[in-house]
Amino acid sequence: MPGARADERMIARFDALFAELSEIGRANGTGLHRLAFGAADAEARAVFAARAGALGLHVHTDEIGNQFALVRPPAPADRTVLLGSHLDSQPDGGRFDGQLGVAAALAVVAELGAGGGTGGGADGGTGGASSAGAGAANVGAVNWANEEGARFQPSVMGSSVFTGQLALRPALAARDAGGAALGEELAQRGLAGGTALPGTVVAYAELHVEQGPVLEREGIELGIVDRTWAAYKADVRVHGVQTHTGPTPMAQRVDALAAAGRLIAQLRELGLADPEQALHTAAAWMRITPNSPNATPSLVEFKAELRSPDEARLRAARAALTAAAGELERETGVRCEFGVWSERRAVGFDPAAVALASAAVAAAGIRARRVPTIAGHDAVIMNAAGIPTALLFTPSADGITHHAAEYTAPADQHRGVRALAAVAAALIARV
Amino acid sequence: MPGARADERMIARFDALFAELSEIGRANGTGLHRLAFGAADAEARAVFAARAGALGLHVHTDEIGNQFALVRPPAPADRTVLLGSHLDSQPDGGRFDGQLGVAAALAVVAELGAGGGTGGGADGGTGGASSAGAGAANVGAVNWANEEGARFQPSVMGSSVFTGQLALRPALAARDAGGAALGEELAQRGLAGGTALPGTVVAYAELHVEQGPVLEREGIELGIVDRTWAAYKADVRVHGVQTHTGPTPMAQRVDALAAAGRLIAQLRELGLADPEQALHTAAAWMRITPNSPNATPSLVEFKAELRSPDEARLRAARAALTAAAGELERETGVRCEFGVWSERRAVGFDPAAVALASAAVAAAGIRARRVPTIAGHDAVIMNAAGIPTALLFTPSADGITHHAAEYTAPADQHRGVRALAAVAAALIARV
Repeated sequence: MPGARADERMIARFDALFAELSEIGRANGTGLHRLAFGAADAEARAVFAARAGALGLHVHTDEIGNQFALVRPPAPADRTVLLGSHLDSQPDGGRFDGQLGVAAALAVVAELGAGGGTGGGADGGTGGASSAGAGAANVGAVNWANEEGARFQPSVMGSSVFTGQLALRPALAARDAGGAALGEELAQRGLAGGTALPGTVVAYAELHVEQGPVLEREGIELGIVDRTWAAYKADVRVHGVQTHTGPTPMAQRVDALAAAGRLIAQLRELGLADPEQALHTAAAWMRITPNSPNATPSLVEFKAELRSPDEARLRAARAALTAAAGELERETGVRCEFGVWSERRAVGFDPAAVALASAAVAAAGIRARRVPTIAGHDAVIMNAAGIPTALLFTPSADGITHHAAEYTAPADQHRGVRALAAVAAALIARV
Repeated sequence: MPGARADERMIARFDALFAELSEIGRANGTGLHRLAFGAADAEARAVFAARAGALGLHVHTDEIGNQFALVRPPAPADRTVLLGSHLDSQPDGGRFDGQLGVAAALAVVAELGAGGGTGGGADGGTGGASSAGAGAANVGAVNWANEEGARFQPSVMGSSVFTGQLALRPALAARDAGGAALGEELAQRGLAGGTALPGTVVAYAELHVEQGPVLEREGIELGIVDRTWAAYKADVRVHGVQTHTGPTPMAQRVDALAAAGRLIAQLRELGLADPEQALHTAAAWMRITPNSPNATPSLVEFKAELRSPDEARLRAARAALTAAAGELERETGVRCEFGVWSERRAVGFDPAAVALASAAVAAAGIRARRVPTIAGHDAVIMNAAGIPTALLFTPSADGITHHAAEYTAPADQHRGVRALAAVAAALIARV
């Protein structure tokens, strides 16, 4: 564990960074509204770079706008341990989702770069800062670009491009609701660098808020993610026939919005009906054509998502949704199309990384439990790319998230920062 | 009736005007996409003014952008008979809704202005052109601004401002979905004049497509509107609690979109269930906040409308909708607010005007029937303002409307133009 002064310094840096970042795009009291690549996000990114530089770290930005702050200048021969999360937020979101992990990563990497004590880890050794500063591993904090996918789809974009799971070109071509292209926004704001990060990332750790009520309810201090829920997300297109909302006889109408509304209500019922609460369903985004008060829509598009830890249950729910759409077609004359927007298997996190993280956290005296992640995270993408990955959850008060009231108490924040430091040291010691 | 040559000239002018206007904002084959005060609407308005000028008519434009083309320069002492409709369309709309009536009005007024024979009417007399050209009444064609209310709400805006049922200031302050203010759009495109139309409008006639299937189905050549359906239109706001679509337990979610979807599906069922098909219900416009794929919405707003010829039935349906919303609140935790967006009584058209129109149309040899109007029209607004008003419907093929496939056969169009001429002559003769 870091010495008492190093620990104090690390926590003080975390607190200062977190407080400073929380003012950028602050909205709805203590919430955040900082959509990817907008003005507030650009300001937060500038602060990330400036504070990293002041801490003696070397900043590298890649083509999609991922920001890296490294202990050593990055080089092609590097074997790098990354810690990080994201600085973008949901519209009217909270200040912990993403930002907690970035501030923690910068504070931890700064200690490592300063040669402060960062021993400990799975083997109780004393690797860490000295090995990071001069040894085999380079170490860095990362701010992944556009994790939320609120303004530009898809989500987890930066880590997906970084790991080659999403090609750069379609990512840059993504457009927001106002028609702005992501690539042009990056260029205009000077947010993208010219090259990928040199070297190889050999391990990744991320601290994030749970965004659910389990840890708090069960009195667990920290979650160590050992598996993901499976997810099926569909782009649903409901085709109706545009007509006047007034004179057209009811029986003659092919009303795409009424049909989509019924299907979305049924989608929610599917999730609610699951006896083990192991099926989460939602639709949160919709586009209506023409969206004119006096014309029943010709087209209603929405994004349906279903999540479960159990792939068979997910398949059954997906079949039930498709069946409901078929019934809707027969009853109302609409035509429903389903396109796959995103599909994720239920996968385990690298068992060695989970074991290492569990041991490091236990050695640091933190009461942890292994938990699944229901939400997607950059850590899920890194793990899927075969990079040994540790994802740590701090409790979320009442499970509230994507909301200004999102809250994690200071003691839980600090415990999370220390857990990240312990896991980082263990990962570095293994390189 | 007009002489054979005058009739031929009137129909030829109508055909030419209708064909020319149909090219402006043409979309989806033979449809129209000509939203109020947009580029295509501005072009159609310029054509209206240019053709009116070429026909020797005097063009006056008022502060909200209503265009009048008058036989005589308008003067404060005028007692004016107006014929008209609107040139704006729904998004992806049809080419007959509105445009038919404006082209017909210009063709009829041009004949009246030219001193062509426009006798006939209720008393079979021979008033008309000569009385219009030099007698008591001034006569004009009108293109009412923003009838559709698709881009800027409310609908029937131009006629509502003209008759004082809507104040000019809030109309000019209306904003489209992109945030553009109506008043600024008018100013930038130079579409508004400085003053109201001088004089007093003593009668109004409008030719419009039925937008429903009744006339065609019953083999009626022309509908003479003698009453309106009542309408209740509500701005519904469904408040939820924004949260992550993934980790939040289903039972903890207060999902505004699922709730709104269910309510809209129930609204449609209300209409479908009416045993006499005397209740039409719909929602066609919706706004979702924040409309991010991973955040269940905090707010879903939609416009609900209910129409019936029977006010008691409408009240019962409105109560049923409110009750459904109350049940939804108790079951799901959302909060529903209802604001009145528009409310129209079931009213009769001025009986004298209906009788006069019926007689004029019968004298012209056209097989007509009295019908209600379910949709709102500028004529409904004029009638509500106490102006003797005749609203004539031509058949709509299959009742299709607000759609590119909207169609009225040439013979029905021409019959409508002749009916309008006959009714205009009768109205003028009565001044």
